[in-house]
Amino acid sequence: MINEQYKKMLEGKSVIRQLSEFATARGKEIGYENVFDYSLGNPSVPVPEQFTEVMIDLLKNKTSMELHGYSPSLGIASVKEKIAENLNKRFGMNYTGNHIFPTSGAAGAVAHAVRCVTKPGDEVLTFAPFFPEYMPYINSSGAVLKVVPANTDNFQINFEKLEEMLNENTMALLINTPNNPSGAVYSAETLTALADLLYRKQEEYGHDIFIISDEPYREIVFAGVDAPYVSKFYDNTLSCYSYSKSISLPGERIGYVATNPKCTDAELISAMCGQISRGIGHNCPASIIQLAVSEVLDLTSDMSVYETNMNLLYNELTNLGFSCVKPGGTFYIFPKALEEDAVAFCKKALDYDLVLVPSDSFGVPGYFRMAYCIDTEKVERSLVALRKFVKENY
Amino acid sequence: MINEQYKKMLEGKSVIRQLSEFATARGKEIGYENVFDYSLGNPSVPVPEQFTEVMIDLLKNKTSMELHGYSPSLGIASVKEKIAENLNKRFGMNYTGNHIFPTSGAAGAVAHAVRCVTKPGDEVLTFAPFFPEYMPYINSSGAVLKVVPANTDNFQINFEKLEEMLNENTMALLINTPNNPSGAVYSAETLTALADLLYRKQEEYGHDIFIISDEPYREIVFAGVDAPYVSKFYDNTLSCYSYSKSISLPGERIGYVATNPKCTDAELISAMCGQISRGIGHNCPASIIQLAVSEVLDLTSDMSVYETNMNLLYNELTNLGFSCVKPGGTFYIFPKALEEDAVAFCKKALDYDLVLVPSDSFGVPGYFRMAYCIDTEKVERSLVALRKFVKENY
Repeated sequence: MINEQYKKMLEGKSVIRQLSEFATARGKEIGYENVFDYSLGNPSVPVPEQFTEVMIDLLKNKTSMELHGYSPSLGIASVKEKIAENLNKRFGMNYTGNHIFPTSGAAGAVAHAVRCVTKPGDEVLTFAPFFPEYMPYINSSGAVLKVVPANTDNFQINFEKLEEMLNENTMALLINTPNNPSGAVYSAETLTALADLLYRKQEEYGHDIFIISDEPYREIVFAGVDAPYVSKFYDNTLSCYSYSKSISLPGERIGYVATNPKCTDAELISAMCGQISRGIGHNCPASIIQLAVSEVLDLTSDMSVYETNMNLLYNELTNLGFSCVKPGGTFYIFPKALEEDAVAFCKKALDYDLVLVPSDSFGVPGYFRMAYCIDTEKVERSLVALRKFVKENY
Repeated sequence: MINEQYKKMLEGKSVIRQLSEFATARGKEIGYENVFDYSLGNPSVPVPEQFTEVMIDLLKNKTSMELHGYSPSLGIASVKEKIAENLNKRFGMNYTGNHIFPTSGAAGAVAHAVRCVTKPGDEVLTFAPFFPEYMPYINSSGAVLKVVPANTDNFQINFEKLEEMLNENTMALLINTPNNPSGAVYSAETLTALADLLYRKQEEYGHDIFIISDEPYREIVFAGVDAPYVSKFYDNTLSCYSYSKSISLPGERIGYVATNPKCTDAELISAMCGQISRGIGHNCPASIIQLAVSEVLDLTSDMSVYETNMNLLYNELTNLGFSCVKPGGTFYIFPKALEEDAVAFCKKALDYDLVLVPSDSFGVPGYFRMAYCIDTEKVERSLVALRKFVKENY
């Protein structure tokens, strides 16, 4: 008599998690250093030292109540104000603390944002390739996720397909730039065209269309690439952020929804997020983590390793004849497989202890993702395996 | 075009929170030390020193990945095993780590447990007086919360009313012992009678009936009171715990669901909780908090102040002619108001800077709750105000 819906969900195990488990098991046989595990997006660079110092300082100098007492259900006011100020300074916005709602990372932020701006049955559009966890975030809210086919030339937006799919039931677009899995960063040109289209469609349909902007990789942008702030382009934007990648804190589950002050009902969105959290008994991220993060808002981990790894992989892949869009950010690369069936391709790669994720669950068949948030030394060794794999099979 | 359901929830502001805000505002006028604020259940005693030491030790000696990397979505294995062992040792259970699902406190635990064992439309029974937040936890899942009237003699279970209300749609009972707001602790006799009744009804209806046991006050039990472990009495029990009160960590949002190994589908419940979390993007409590708590499982804060406060208040209240069941645990007391309308009674008390919570939202009209998790010195000063209030009004 247990709930059949959730029971059924147990069958739909994530491909990424399965591959990661394979890599761990294989590591027990041959030593994990010999498994070229490109499956999981778990940051490899350490948290900034200052974060650890701030945590210790808080633990030594604040009272138990100040540190561990209940957070207000909409988040700690001083933390939200600091985040707002920091965003205003960096991106020329006009947020106040009330526009910021602290969440369990970007995942929690997206899940809350979509519930704020849709009702069950509404359509949410996202763009292939997309992070597969969007499916449970959106579908469990009752809204329906539809996927706009990819623009495989450069992984910017496929506007032709987008216009075809936009309709009166479309209440939100869920975008992700810099993008997991392609590493593409939406240009100012793309964002301007997107905003123009949505302003036009809002008028045509007579209702709001919101952008939910998933931005956990906002700080991981490579040399020469411009990563414009989405909310600057379109008023009805809810920006979803995480400190998981920028300061390597994925386990601490901390991020936020930042509602554009010009968004419809902007003054209500944070409070509505609080009601959504209340229903699931969540009531904000850990208080000490909120407080500590607010002291290091201008810092990031040393993420130069990701760019080094990207260049190594991009050069080798293109040398080996892979078709591949050069990532502008993130720690992912998304080349085309050397045969049509990406699952078969990735299966063969396992014989060389190369753990690659086939692209099917990202909504673009025939590609694969490599998460290169690993040591550069290991990336270098993996190139030998990659050459051997390609030479012996294609 | 934002979601009307959540927008509407904004109107139903918690009475407790409103009174707490009044107390804070009044404190700014006359000094908070002069406001006898009995509104909020925010623990006043500090976290055990060892917890702080463990946190600092983890920060100094663990790598960033060990400490802040992604927690597995079902919780950190070593943490769950330690919790299971600790419960087995204390209560003679046979949990393994797989029966433990770490949550955002007991609130998150109850919200997950109810989603596991009910589907929309099913009935969940709880017992007056009850914690008002049960309403959003249950109702947002789609199940329907029904309230069994109180046994006001001793705040044990009103079995006559319970039998009347149990029906084929009843899939779960949500109990809370030690109880917020009454402070009552269910006796072994009560729990035995409850289990007997439910085993009989399961057979009669041909389906499982689960007990969701909300136990955040399990460690706050006063001298001479026996607080039996609910799950020992009934196999289909999901125990919901929080470290908020026992080690004064409410802001860190840490607790768990512990599924009785003999519960129907016991081996699936934790994994289902994981799927429920996944939909809201939550994915476990903060990793450093999971790790730190698992090192102090045998500790509690020094909670003797709660018993001291309880005795002071109980003696004064009964001397003043209040009808009052003596609390067996928690940091609440729940006397009968001196007039029928508890809201009017509590409103008059505000003139004496006594912030009492009227009982209507707890499902028993005519009573009031005092949360005495405050300094004993302040409790003593409040008795003067209490005497004056009663003398001048009743």
